[in-house]
Amino acid sequence: MTIDDLLQSSGEWLAGGGPMGDVVISSRVRLARNVEGFPFLSRATAEQRRNIEQLLFQAIHACDFGRQTFYVNIEKSEPVDRQLLVERHLISRQHADGEGCRGVAISPTETLSLMINEEDHLRMQVLRRGMNLDEAWNEIMLVDRTLEPAVDFAFHKQYGYLTACPTNVGTGLRVSVMLHLPALKLTNELEKMFRAARDMRLAVRGLYGEGTEAIGDFFQVSNQITLGQSEEEILDSFKMNVIPSIVNYERQARTMLKTDKSAALQDRVWRALGLLQNARAISTDEALYLLSHLRLGIVLECVKHIDLQTISELFIATQSAHLQKRSGHLLDDQGRSVARAELIRDRLARYRPGEN
Amino acid sequence: MTIDDLLQSSGEWLAGGGPMGDVVISSRVRLARNVEGFPFLSRATAEQRRNIEQLLFQAIHACDFGRQTFYVNIEKSEPVDRQLLVERHLISRQHADGEGCRGVAISPTETLSLMINEEDHLRMQVLRRGMNLDEAWNEIMLVDRTLEPAVDFAFHKQYGYLTACPTNVGTGLRVSVMLHLPALKLTNELEKMFRAARDMRLAVRGLYGEGTEAIGDFFQVSNQITLGQSEEEILDSFKMNVIPSIVNYERQARTMLKTDKSAALQDRVWRALGLLQNARAISTDEALYLLSHLRLGIVLECVKHIDLQTISELFIATQSAHLQKRSGHLLDDQGRSVARAELIRDRLARYRPGEN
Repeated sequence: MTIDDLLQSSGEWLAGGGPMGDVVISSRVRLARNVEGFPFLSRATAEQRRNIEQLLFQAIHACDFGRQTFYVNIEKSEPVDRQLLVERHLISRQHADGEGCRGVAISPTETLSLMINEEDHLRMQVLRRGMNLDEAWNEIMLVDRTLEPAVDFAFHKQYGYLTACPTNVGTGLRVSVMLHLPALKLTNELEKMFRAARDMRLAVRGLYGEGTEAIGDFFQVSNQITLGQSEEEILDSFKMNVIPSIVNYERQARTMLKTDKSAALQDRVWRALGLLQNARAISTDEALYLLSHLRLGIVLECVKHIDLQTISELFIATQSAHLQKRSGHLLDDQGRSVARAELIRDRLARYRPGEN
Repeated sequence: MTIDDLLQSSGEWLAGGGPMGDVVISSRVRLARNVEGFPFLSRATAEQRRNIEQLLFQAIHACDFGRQTFYVNIEKSEPVDRQLLVERHLISRQHADGEGCRGVAISPTETLSLMINEEDHLRMQVLRRGMNLDEAWNEIMLVDRTLEPAVDFAFHKQYGYLTACPTNVGTGLRVSVMLHLPALKLTNELEKMFRAARDMRLAVRGLYGEGTEAIGDFFQVSNQITLGQSEEEILDSFKMNVIPSIVNYERQARTMLKTDKSAALQDRVWRALGLLQNARAISTDEALYLLSHLRLGIVLECVKHIDLQTISELFIATQSAHLQKRSGHLLDDQGRSVARAELIRDRLARYRPGEN
């Protein structure tokens, strides 16, 4: 399997749906690990980076799950291929933009990715559609326990796993849940939710994690504390408390929009559909904004003949690197806007006005 | 025939088309006359107003053309009916909003309207689709010459016809041409055209004449001088010089948009269509704005399956009084926006995406 094959499918989690799929796009768990006997990457030589990569690459490919993955040498990849992996959430922007020897092992379903030489020597990530931290946690535990006998991870009796950045020391666990919150945005209640999240020491970020702004009403909620809490405590707080609360707020806001502001909601949703079906050039931001409103309309059954999967796939397929890979050549800003509008029109063409 | 019958047809000039119909919506000539022996209306008693109305009403209905007209007593009309006549350009806003005894005689094709007790005792107006001042002039001359033997119009050997406002003294003639200038607007060249018009002592106004703002890229160009120029000189300047020049500028701007900015033009036109076909609430201003862009797209053949007449009819039918008459009851602002969007969707439903 190669990067180009990724374009043919939408992967397990990219297809949309899953538990609480009306609000929760995806669940992610990530573990940070470093190899004992090597310095953190900020202080490692090029030679040491190469040795770390080889050691981890071999350990991964010695396992059952590892043999099924395909490996991408990020250092030697084209910028558009790196960007493609970022857009599919298989590597971080930091990993894409970094320097030196580094790579990623990806499972064919795209649920597992193992980044070598990102900020830490190894970052293991499992993604699942919808609210599904249990499955994600079980899979990553399996990976971690399979690798542990083969690699000596840096571990301190008192502090736990040692990581390049102190915010990851301890469990090295980051739990992130991607949420679609258009109704809280439309009813101006997002700020309230953000404040509550900050009070719980949670981070709220945009579509591509750290340092990215929220666009198109998508928000990533993740834990900031990795020290002094067990993995189970962190996961339980997400499963029992944080996510169900936010999902509940969003659903209440949606019900309010549908009952008290039905006309305005219908107008917004149908205008989004009209623009998506007709525009000849659409920027990334506008596409996200319009697709977000259309997604809300589908979930609330204002629009009935378009399935959620079509929209989920468009969120991925309309991104810059995806458009360029599909077209077979690099495109400038304007070229991407035109290609994006074409793709959206094509995917939505089967739906015609008056069919609702 | 009654006001309600007007809704069943679109009238000769409202249907669109005609000479230079890509740019010129309609041509209008208007003559102002006052009856000898009566004061101007600002100084007339209620009794005198009534006498003027009766005298003119009878003179009109004694003529062949007059017997075919139907008469609307504006004083006793409902506000929504007055507004309907304004929207069809059959009376002025001033006539609708005035006070006291007044009315209008309208020909079945809506090309001729004779306003009694507007600003002057009699204002005769002929409208034609497209650039057609000759026909309009011939028809109004016929009306004027037919009435002249029956009514003693106030006339001064040196000044010509006497009118309530000095700007009309002389010929009492106002020539107005309604233009659709979306390309000059999009290319920021309107101001240049306005300046040239002002230098020629012409007035440029919005869709409903004096005191109205230009919305939806429609502009009414009319003469300001009525004294010291013969009727023929005024008409010739419009036919030979003013209008052909502006039409030429607009066509050049359209050609430029179509060749040099084709992608942006297509995007604008199709977005307008998408919104018109899908919105659930549209204000008057937005409807005019979007219909204007769609009209440009049809003329430039970006959109091929919608005919201009559909758009011309929508310009008229989407106005407030038209929507309320059609629905059978008064509507508030929001109700009108919803009814307007419904009507537009209905008329454009036969056109589906992907047919171009």
